[in-house]
Amino acid sequence: MAGEFDFIQWLRAQPAPADIPAHARVVVPPGDDLAVLRWDAAADGLLVVGVDQVLDGVHFDSAVHPPRAIGRKAMNRNLSDCAAMACLPAAAVVAIAAPRGVGADYLKELYLGMRDAADPFGCPIVGGDTGSWDGKLAVTVSILGRTAGVDPVRRSGAEVGDGIFVTGPLGGSLLGRHMTFEPRVFLGRSLGGEFGVSAMIDLSDGVSRDLAHICRESGVGAVIDAAAVPIHDDAHALFRRDRRSPLEHALHDGEDYELLFTYEGGTTLGTCIGKITSEPGLQLRAADGTHTPLEPKGWEHPL
Amino acid sequence: MAGEFDFIQWLRAQPAPADIPAHARVVVPPGDDLAVLRWDAAADGLLVVGVDQVLDGVHFDSAVHPPRAIGRKAMNRNLSDCAAMACLPAAAVVAIAAPRGVGADYLKELYLGMRDAADPFGCPIVGGDTGSWDGKLAVTVSILGRTAGVDPVRRSGAEVGDGIFVTGPLGGSLLGRHMTFEPRVFLGRSLGGEFGVSAMIDLSDGVSRDLAHICRESGVGAVIDAAAVPIHDDAHALFRRDRRSPLEHALHDGEDYELLFTYEGGTTLGTCIGKITSEPGLQLRAADGTHTPLEPKGWEHPL
Repeated sequence: MAGEFDFIQWLRAQPAPADIPAHARVVVPPGDDLAVLRWDAAADGLLVVGVDQVLDGVHFDSAVHPPRAIGRKAMNRNLSDCAAMACLPAAAVVAIAAPRGVGADYLKELYLGMRDAADPFGCPIVGGDTGSWDGKLAVTVSILGRTAGVDPVRRSGAEVGDGIFVTGPLGGSLLGRHMTFEPRVFLGRSLGGEFGVSAMIDLSDGVSRDLAHICRESGVGAVIDAAAVPIHDDAHALFRRDRRSPLEHALHDGEDYELLFTYEGGTTLGTCIGKITSEPGLQLRAADGTHTPLEPKGWEHPL
Repeated sequence: MAGEFDFIQWLRAQPAPADIPAHARVVVPPGDDLAVLRWDAAADGLLVVGVDQVLDGVHFDSAVHPPRAIGRKAMNRNLSDCAAMACLPAAAVVAIAAPRGVGADYLKELYLGMRDAADPFGCPIVGGDTGSWDGKLAVTVSILGRTAGVDPVRRSGAEVGDGIFVTGPLGGSLLGRHMTFEPRVFLGRSLGGEFGVSAMIDLSDGVSRDLAHICRESGVGAVIDAAAVPIHDDAHALFRRDRRSPLEHALHDGEDYELLFTYEGGTTLGTCIGKITSEPGLQLRAADGTHTPLEPKGWEHPL
């Protein structure tokens, strides 16, 4: 069976993305102890960094999803974090904990899936660590981003009176979209740059939970207009299966990877689903005008 | 049971390291989608980045090692990579895949172990991702380093005639040192800076394998003088147990996390164990002057 070093040789023989921007030219590529980048993102002196992992049985099912799809999701979750900060992906490092005996072809597919996701953004994979164990598949991606002239959009900037917007229909991603979503990187840039939206987050945990993050960080509350929430066909499909209402799915399911943002003006880049209020907490306004508390029901990993 | 968000709140309440250098001031701390750093390491325009994971049953044994020691090792392996590149650790992001039900106290200890290791270098943990799963413990650290006036020392710079040096006695780390080693960060800085050593690597896979990396990257060979290899007491102790010679342990065991470097001159910062040659391959010279091939026997993860 092929060993780790054969796989590393294969990795190093892969061509770089067609168009790596000059800002992050790779001086020392994968294969040394660490990669070295020339970092002229220092044009504005800001470096953006984060990490996100996908775990077998939690974020994907290795018995169902092919490795290429798993690799894509691992990278896309990180690219979606870049979108939420309005930054541009610049470079990534990846760690794979692979079940013993999975084989080099499987790992190559994982890697190619990550490349599928990152290449369109000119974001090279500049380092990695692959290990095998008597355990399940875990894929961890750390992403470096550059602000490149657009201030990072934080969760803490929402202001009373701002509208609350989402960039697409929500709910039911479990039917498949959670593996195949497109990270809203360029949309995030526009929202942070041209529009200067006040707060932004990507919808990984569900509206009820992710909006609560924004409200807590910003010291505000929110009212969501039930009739305004764009509901994905998948949410309707799931309703027919589990009898939880499509709206419930749209508000709580998570893993939509659309952007949720707050903005004082109007924009066609998102659908307005509510308003930021001074009163703490989240409220849901029904069609008849009654308000009920909107409790977070999105996914929280129990420890 | 405490949830992920309680743990994140606890994390955010932890004080930063006493002395974060101004080069990597954290503009947006953990808690947003990504952290944002002010990156004046742009003084020399180089950013160093890598990733290293520790896996239960491979790099530690969760039935034996307490979480604080596991956290320390996870961070120290990355700091050791910084040492091998002669760069200064600047910031880290961490991902933890935790067995379901492990509890928040366990995760806190893991985190504090990482802080134990990183704080002395003023290296803040600026982001993270914690998930629980029906799987074993995996801890992944990604490290950012800055060159700060010292060119990164690569594996590819060894020259024919250079001496081969190691910074400490080797072998038998399995008896405990693999969990408790001190990364040679400041030693690496001196070797790269004042001495300008030609190539460097940290000994994670064992001399036979790690030196082979340097030889392959540099297009050279090496002769190791058996009598010159500094042998750790632990290698003698293991010999008494398994009858593999202490020298075998010193050359092949790995996880010493000392630095191996090549240098044209003399230095007291390391012990000279051999010479770089033009003839490819690694040779071991016995006390009687005979040469035998030194085959890599260090750890290679089978895939």
